[in-house]
Amino acid sequence: MKVLKGGTLVLPQGLVVGDLAMEGGKIVRVGGTISPAEADEVTDVTGCWVFPGFIDAHTHMQCWTGMDWTADSFETGTRAAACGGTTTIVDYATQDKGMTMPQALEEWHRRADGTCAANYAFHMAIADWSDQTRADLAAIRQAGVSSFKTYFAYDHLRLDDAQTLEVLEALAPLGGTLCVHCENGTLVNELQRRVFESGVTGPEGHPMSRPDVCEAEAISRLLMIAHLAGDARVNVVHLSTKLGLEVIRAAKERGQRNIFVETCPQYLLLDETRYLEPGFEGAKYVMSPPLRKATDRAALRRAVVEGEIDTISTDHCSFNLHGQKDRGMGDFRKIPNGGPGVEHRPALIATSFADALGPRELLALLSENQARVFGMFPRKGILAVGSDADVCVWDPAQEWTISAATQHQNVDYTTYEGFQCKGRAHLVYVNGELAARDGEPTGAKPGTYVAR
Amino acid sequence: MKVLKGGTLVLPQGLVVGDLAMEGGKIVRVGGTISPAEADEVTDVTGCWVFPGFIDAHTHMQCWTGMDWTADSFETGTRAAACGGTTTIVDYATQDKGMTMPQALEEWHRRADGTCAANYAFHMAIADWSDQTRADLAAIRQAGVSSFKTYFAYDHLRLDDAQTLEVLEALAPLGGTLCVHCENGTLVNELQRRVFESGVTGPEGHPMSRPDVCEAEAISRLLMIAHLAGDARVNVVHLSTKLGLEVIRAAKERGQRNIFVETCPQYLLLDETRYLEPGFEGAKYVMSPPLRKATDRAALRRAVVEGEIDTISTDHCSFNLHGQKDRGMGDFRKIPNGGPGVEHRPALIATSFADALGPRELLALLSENQARVFGMFPRKGILAVGSDADVCVWDPAQEWTISAATQHQNVDYTTYEGFQCKGRAHLVYVNGELAARDGEPTGAKPGTYVAR
Amino acid sequence: MKVLKGGTLVLPQGLVVGDLAMEGGKIVRVGGTISPAEADEVTDVTGCWVFPGFIDAHTHMQCWTGMDWTADSFETGTRAAACGGTTTIVDYATQDKGMTMPQALEEWHRRADGTCAANYAFHMAIADWSDQTRADLAAIRQAGVSSFKTYFAYDHLRLDDAQTLEVLEALAPLGGTLCVHCENGTLVNELQRRVFESGVTGPEGHPMSRPDVCEAEAISRLLMIAHLAGDARVNVVHLSTKLGLEVIRAAKERGQRNIFVETCPQYLLLDETRYLEPGFEGAKYVMSPPLRKATDRAALRRAVVEGEIDTISTDHCSFNLHGQKDRGMGDFRKIPNGGPGVEHRPALIATSFADALGPRELLALLSENQARVFGMFPRKGILAVGSDADVCVWDPAQEWTISAATQHQNVDYTTYEGFQCKGRAHLVYVNGELAARDGEPTGAKPGTYVAR
Amino acid sequence: MKVLKGGTLVLPQGLVVGDLAMEGGKIVRVGGTISPAEADEVTDVTGCWVFPGFIDAHTHMQCWTGMDWTADSFETGTRAAACGGTTTIVDYATQDKGMTMPQALEEWHRRADGTCAANYAFHMAIADWSDQTRADLAAIRQAGVSSFKTYFAYDHLRLDDAQTLEVLEALAPLGGTLCVHCENGTLVNELQRRVFESGVTGPEGHPMSRPDVCEAEAISRLLMIAHLAGDARVNVVHLSTKLGLEVIRAAKERGQRNIFVETCPQYLLLDETRYLEPGFEGAKYVMSPPLRKATDRAALRRAVVEGEIDTISTDHCSFNLHGQKDRGMGDFRKIPNGGPGVEHRPALIATSFADALGPRELLALLSENQARVFGMFPRKGILAVGSDADVCVWDPAQEWTISAATQHQNVDYTTYEGFQCKGRAHLVYVNGELAARDGEPTGAKPGTYVAR
Repeated sequence: MKVLKGGTLVLPQGLVVGDLAMEGGKIVRVGGTISPAEADEVTDVTGCWVFPGFIDAHTHMQCWTGMDWTADSFETGTRAAACGGTTTIVDYATQDKGMTMPQALEEWHRRADGTCAANYAFHMAIADWSDQTRADLAAIRQAGVSSFKTYFAYDHLRLDDAQTLEVLEALAPLGGTLCVHCENGTLVNELQRRVFESGVTGPEGHPMSRPDVCEAEAISRLLMIAHLAGDARVNVVHLSTKLGLEVIRAAKERGQRNIFVETCPQYLLLDETRYLEPGFEGAKYVMSPPLRKATDRAALRRAVVEGEIDTISTDHCSFNLHGQKDRGMGDFRKIPNGGPGVEHRPALIATSFADALGPRELLALLSENQARVFGMFPRKGILAVGSDADVCVWDPAQEWTISAATQHQNVDYTTYEGFQCKGRAHLVYVNGELAARDGEPTGAKPGTYVAR
Repeated sequence: MKVLKGGTLVLPQGLVVGDLAMEGGKIVRVGGTISPAEADEVTDVTGCWVFPGFIDAHTHMQCWTGMDWTADSFETGTRAAACGGTTTIVDYATQDKGMTMPQALEEWHRRADGTCAANYAFHMAIADWSDQTRADLAAIRQAGVSSFKTYFAYDHLRLDDAQTLEVLEALAPLGGTLCVHCENGTLVNELQRRVFESGVTGPEGHPMSRPDVCEAEAISRLLMIAHLAGDARVNVVHLSTKLGLEVIRAAKERGQRNIFVETCPQYLLLDETRYLEPGFEGAKYVMSPPLRKATDRAALRRAVVEGEIDTISTDHCSFNLHGQKDRGMGDFRKIPNGGPGVEHRPALIATSFADALGPRELLALLSENQARVFGMFPRKGILAVGSDADVCVWDPAQEWTISAATQHQNVDYTTYEGFQCKGRAHLVYVNGELAARDGEPTGAKPGTYVAR
Repeated sequence: MKVLKGGTLVLPQGLVVGDLAMEGGKIVRVGGTISPAEADEVTDVTGCWVFPGFIDAHTHMQCWTGMDWTADSFETGTRAAACGGTTTIVDYATQDKGMTMPQALEEWHRRADGTCAANYAFHMAIADWSDQTRADLAAIRQAGVSSFKTYFAYDHLRLDDAQTLEVLEALAPLGGTLCVHCENGTLVNELQRRVFESGVTGPEGHPMSRPDVCEAEAISRLLMIAHLAGDARVNVVHLSTKLGLEVIRAAKERGQRNIFVETCPQYLLLDETRYLEPGFEGAKYVMSPPLRKATDRAALRRAVVEGEIDTISTDHCSFNLHGQKDRGMGDFRKIPNGGPGVEHRPALIATSFADALGPRELLALLSENQARVFGMFPRKGILAVGSDADVCVWDPAQEWTISAATQHQNVDYTTYEGFQCKGRAHLVYVNGELAARDGEPTGAKPGTYVAR
Repeated sequence: MKVLKGGTLVLPQGLVVGDLAMEGGKIVRVGGTISPAEADEVTDVTGCWVFPGFIDAHTHMQCWTGMDWTADSFETGTRAAACGGTTTIVDYATQDKGMTMPQALEEWHRRADGTCAANYAFHMAIADWSDQTRADLAAIRQAGVSSFKTYFAYDHLRLDDAQTLEVLEALAPLGGTLCVHCENGTLVNELQRRVFESGVTGPEGHPMSRPDVCEAEAISRLLMIAHLAGDARVNVVHLSTKLGLEVIRAAKERGQRNIFVETCPQYLLLDETRYLEPGFEGAKYVMSPPLRKATDRAALRRAVVEGEIDTISTDHCSFNLHGQKDRGMGDFRKIPNGGPGVEHRPALIATSFADALGPRELLALLSENQARVFGMFPRKGILAVGSDADVCVWDPAQEWTISAATQHQNVDYTTYEGFQCKGRAHLVYVNGELAARDGEPTGAKPGTYVAR
């Protein structure tokens, strides 16, 4: 039995100082005082906050995105995740056109199994909606996948409104949740053409071709279709705009219940001025949706504080600036979309919201809500007897600086270079095994697949 | 000089008893007492309400709709309009694919000129958005057309989101207004297929295949695109649902200014139970959008009273039940969409809203706002010196019953058979000439084209 | 001891069948069964609703209004009140310019004392705000007057904004309530001039010269000044417009608490079309504020049902059509402003709101709230042991018709001629003495002054 | 052709790196790369934000305000404006009682023509509303003045409610906009008297005598009168209170469309504690409306971020502390009202809102919206081919400190002494000519009159 002694346990009902014990990959004691005599190993964590391991419910590891392969494999990606305090990722297994979902799932297992420092579950992205796909749904659900994804943008991925309706209806009897990439692809295609033809070819053309309306319109459409499907359960991923937030708020006020909302650190900390960094540096921020105006950022930050956002995950989808992103020099439309983030989310949010969010809010936004929304609670997302021994011991006093030079994400930059953090994952246990310490991996690979 | 003596003049600033004089097709005196010695003709209209002639800003006369030719020509349609008190219609000239707008306009003039008891203006529906169409806009505007229309449904008419954006942007410098048919065609097509394949083939399948979300989603999309186009000026036609109303309200609350809203009598008086009338009678109500639930009707009625609706027009688009609509027996999708209404709108609204709307509200909803929204004010829509002598002398005490047997619409039914009206157009002047009296035409055809 | 046996007692907490006893001018028993042996007089009131006597908190009896003397004296006015079920009026004693408040109060007592069938209290209208008036306030309060009135219109009565502020501040330490006539006199004067000069001289010019903005603006100004005076206690009298209602609602939503709202039957049952009655009949409806549009009426009716209105009183201020109102033929500005109503309020409200208001709501709107707002509760406004024996036994089944021919108001018309009532005041006791029965007076004059 | 090379162009649709060229006083190229060979002059502006010149739509230069002459002439005022990045001011030409508008306009031209470093347009303040003034409106409009102003306070300037209505009605056919100084003069006069008589004679008496209600009431009244005038187009200037903001919001929610709102830096950065500075320093902040409470400031800042404010201008109206303001020692009512600001607005807003507003929001609030609201768009307020070559090259990295010692406003203090700015107008072009560089004037006077 491993005992963490004297920490501040962050529980849904509040903060309590006490001990926590793990054994056989499970949490076996929470709170109170545990005699060292009972323990195989005792670690003093006085002054630290003890969280259930953080969950990043939006990653793309080792994945062909239509433009290029992402830079991080499951091995490097989950190692970086663990270094930052994240003990579980939910990655988007993606069916390509002409591929079945079981084939995709098998392929994702092949890539991940046996290589991971952190646990991994899979969403399934549906790009080829057909009778076959519909028929495969039950088997995929049986294989532990309870959340799916569709796109309103990207020509090789998008479904039309009728198909989206059908997917939502098909998921209902399975208790599934549909995550949706909300951008109006028709408008984006037209605006990309216009911006490029107007002579804007650099990274700054990216946000110009995807204004806030493109996101907000797609969100509105999704929520309408979900309403038509009988208040189907949907998760709006990577919300980035004030206008989109207002659309969601209006639907909730009309009484629609099964709407969940995710945003990401980049939309809470950065803004569109980044695209103007000299050289081709702006390409680092080319992701979809793009970084937004300062007023969008302010509105989303306020929504986080007011409890209108359920989860903060990363949309980690890394590409190297040199050798990958730079293939889009001269045409921003060819810059692979995406950026890294899985390693730094907890520190970014804890630091940047230090004045407004305390440990319990961090628990909700970074772990518990992910577990609840995606069907892993109370196995994950809570410090409770019987739960998996995924634990992040957080030292709120450590100060450190984010840098590509010292990160573990397998990519040649970070969008937060020089960001000064207050607080760090001191000890990170995955299934009871120590995976990282003070930002460095232990080399262990205790991560396993999380069938939901 | 023709003098109407002793009536209650309905003016924007209130009701006033007084005389009104017309000469040379214009109104030359409003209010006060006019000596009979000055007049060529004096008509006592004591006890009557004197309105500027009513305007129906949404009709489809003598038009191929993709399924059939409408039953009413401009001759029969404007005659019926005049009998009900409507002195001006704004009809939808419609460009078909492969046709230019000037050709469409010429064709509409050919159909209407010289045959009309009431005045007529034209909107221009754009079905073929191309460089040619864009180039023709200025000439069409010059020819007196300042409002246009696009569709989000009907495969032979619909534009996609990018094209809709382009139209809005092209209209801005012309000061144009875009009327939009808001239904999501993709969803409608899918739902029609489903409903039909489920074995529902009769008229009751029509509303099942066009639920409220289809309308509300399209409204939301339109308003988003209009926002993207710089708060472009749009008119949502034939609003039929509570959900759509809520979407409009939310956009207004976000600060969008240039939104105008039209509904029609059928959405304020009838509901979806009509589709269940025995035999094939339900086909009489097959129009798009369809009749809705009682709660939708109640919400729209309240919106009318609260001032959230700008105009009530008819979407008059008549087809005979026998010989036209009945070609859809066995497949509701083949029933020509549309119904008559141009003759009865004023009496229906005045009667059905007797407890909530007075003469001034009727003025606004049936005449003044149409003139303002579509650029005909103060030439039309107000009793003022210098305005056109389009006048409806309304007798609020006449009681009569609507019936196909006595109507002048050239169609074999009315959706309001047996409706008991309180109030009737007693005398209807078009450009100073008496066109109808107590519901019967005089045979005169004083209607002229209204270039805006 | 007089016993009313077997009626339905309308109590704030609900309806209960039981007996009620009066003795020495007070209520001595409420509910349960009283033995006939204990009683001097037993009256069976089975099937009737037993209310505390109704209170009309807005009357102008025997008063010079700047244009003429009102037609009703205290004697005829309170007799009519009692016939309708109203056992207490609160009349506006009015200080003229150059007169002190004590002089006005003495004069009002001289007019009323000893002549009244119903009880009477006094508000004090302040037209001459001076150091003297300020100095007299305490004595007036001591004399039983706790509510006051000021005007924003009428040149001989109006105070400016600074004076209104001073009055509110001076009333605060006395616990006084300020009733305010909310119309913008500057705008009304200008619009009257315009309307008259435009040739409109008949009664229909009256509403044209006092549009809704005139009222709503003045309400807004009053509420702002009351806010400045420290959330002073104000009563908006005779609310007549939707726009004014919205202004009040907004102030309440901002947190302003001490706002009370009165409306009158005429604004809930009639509308502006009345001014067009042939001949000079429209003059019957010349009162300020004027009758409004149908949409205003609808909004106020809804506000009554939703609980946004505290009290319904009458603004009874009667003038004969012949010999008084007709002096304004040829110039609507010279028609004495006001109309009768004190006799018919309970029957009008009970009948017209039969579908929406039950006995408890009638209790609140017609009696209890008046007593609470104006400091007479629980002496008045409730059936409770120790309260004054003012009782209205209401027979909900009686059907009858309002007519000038049979009314007791001392005026030659009623604005509700021919209105068919359901329900009537069967027995009306004032201070324990029977003052009226089935709409006819008994001849008794038991009314006394109510010092508050 | 002058070329600005490599800057970040701030366009309505987003940020883009590219070149901009000016020739003949117009912008001739926007975006893309321009060959140096084509240029007469090339300036590298890499790292800078390139804005259309900022517009200050509220200044009072060289003007008698009823108490004294302002300290800045058009020469010194526009020089200071240009130093801060403002290339156009809209100044209030003011008609005094007994003067005609053409006389006032001629006088203002006499003062400004030929002396200005920045462009200038004129609003016309109407103090003497008469038949003559009404008759002169068309000529004034013809002379390039499309916006007007009236006052609800200041005895020598104020119009009453009926006159305000008439002005609004008279402006409608001209497409004019009315700017209104919203303070209730009656209340202010009374409160000034009270405060002074209570023994408060210093600058701190100024805010005490003008509480928030004085502003909010006047705003409410204005919006009501504008509604009465048919939703007339109004601009609420120098909004300073939360209560006033709420009144505006309520009117917009009721459906009033043509309301525009201005606030000023002083209401966004300073608060009422300034009046307590030792000595007579508090007099520096005596302006009307006064500085407000911290909660008002917070509400206005939030309104700016949420998009509820259209424009931020300055109400620049400078007086020297020594020799002008100090004449009010012993009686705050005699301190000339007003303060400087035209020079520092862009830096103050950019610095103070750095976390919430990006370049695009600055563009809207400081330039584009002023051009749109006051009829100068797209001639001003946008970087577009054909627009006037008014350009502000903004260096976001320059750090500097505001001080009276170094300012160019011709006045002996600044209300922002010691304020540390981040960002500065690096190069300021007026009609294509360099008027200022890094806060210092070049000596050029390229400013011309802007007829609208």
